Amino acid sequence: MKRRLLLVSNSTLYGGGYLDHCQTQIQDFFGKGVKRVLFVPYALHDRDAYTKTARSKFKTLGYEVDGVHEAADPVEAVRKAEAIFIGRGNTFRLLKNLYDNKLVTEIRKRVFDDGVPYMGSSAGTNVSTVSINTTNDMPIVYPPTFAAIGLVPFNINPHYLDTDPNSRHMGETREQRITQYHEEPNTPIVLGLREGSMLLVEGKKVTLLGTTKARLFTPGKPAVEYDPGNDLSFLLDTERASVL
Amino acid sequence: MKRRLLLVSNSTLYGGGYLDHCQTQIQDFFGKGVKRVLFVPYALHDRDAYTKTARSKFKTLGYEVDGVHEAADPVEAVRKAEAIFIGRGNTFRLLKNLYDNKLVTEIRKRVFDDGVPYMGSSAGTNVSTVSINTTNDMPIVYPPTFAAIGLVPFNINPHYLDTDPNSRHMGETREQRITQYHEEPNTPIVLGLREGSMLLVEGKKVTLLGTTKARLFTPGKPAVEYDPGNDLSFLLDTERASVL
Repeated sequence: MKRRLLLVSNSTLYGGGYLDHCQTQIQDFFGKGVKRVLFVPYALHDRDAYTKTARSKFKTLGYEVDGVHEAADPVEAVRKAEAIFIGRGNTFRLLKNLYDNKLVTEIRKRVFDDGVPYMGSSAGTNVSTVSINTTNDMPIVYPPTFAAIGLVPFNINPHYLDTDPNSRHMGETREQRITQYHEEPNTPIVLGLREGSMLLVEGKKVTLLGTTKARLFTPGKPAVEYDPGNDLSFLLDTERASVL
Repeated sequence: MKRRLLLVSNSTLYGGGYLDHCQTQIQDFFGKGVKRVLFVPYALHDRDAYTKTARSKFKTLGYEVDGVHEAADPVEAVRKAEAIFIGRGNTFRLLKNLYDNKLVTEIRKRVFDDGVPYMGSSAGTNVSTVSINTTNDMPIVYPPTFAAIGLVPFNINPHYLDTDPNSRHMGETREQRITQYHEEPNTPIVLGLREGSMLLVEGKKVTLLGTTKARLFTPGKPAVEYDPGNDLSFLLDTERASVL
């Protein structure tokens, strides 16, 4: 089992710059073996500007960035990638573009078969899970399915937000939304990743990293809090043996 | 053109009870001619409990409520309805259930052909528009399309929320989300209905009611604010002559 994932809740933390809060973890994750990272900018409209932002940041960390949209053949670019990073933006747009460009199966293959390290942040974290059913984004386009790349057998809610007892806004709280999801049949567990936290997956081992707690929602059970540093490998328990 | 719609942003306003903030408008809208309102509780999981809540409230306003899920044949129930109310909950679940029960076309027919008054609140307002692309809800189920009942030729963002300059949360603001929607081709204008506001549509006349302003988003143009009482009939300008 070669799978290696770094799944970050948010790309920017209040008061800091783009990916500042996870730069140590990024360098630990890609290490010195990786020279070039294939960046998937599909979640934002202006892919060139977005790639420029990612390229500048990764340069300071010691990595070159190639935009998958710059390649003549995106599938071929994934086949040759040393490492993959999918960033923030609109999750519906991202997933639709991944399917339109036939990258979903290809990325899954590279991660599971070849151990290509995959980093996601925000929308890029959502699409790495079972489905995008627990995204916070507005459904601005209609993807062919909500099923996602499926690199882990659970869902994540990035940018997880605690209920604000002082709010006068009457929309559903984040916890209410996830509870509504779990009213539906056969839904996976959902990890609420607060801004500042991230998940490191190495084979069958899962560790919570970062500076904030995470909140786990299991259908029919009370939510449970976990601290940075906690071993969350049990999240993989429902994984079918066939993918291992 | 017989169309009559009351499209409410939110079902409950901070500090008040269910539908309290719009009860005068509900009575003005349904009037004394309507005796029974057909309620569509598809957006929440517990349809019986939800119908009970709506029934109690409407009773105090002088109307009986029938839950469409209580009918042996929901399509037949719509065919016989004097008035229709679709309420809050999860918009994806609501739209999927409307399609599963073949009610989308039937409701459109009754509103356009027979002048059956339609009231929506929150999710029920979303599904009355062109599409649910501008809902705030979590995509907990996958509907067969995001296209909705299409009683008006524009979209609404209910529970519209202004950007909070003091927020430390780094998720997209509501305005950013709607702007991302308008980056996509051929998207309709979007009316941001703040909590406390509602739209009255009578034939070709549209009026903003309630206590809060509304914010209009048009692709490629700056957003514009409108006050309660304003005539917004121009929102129907893009309507195809065929539906009139």
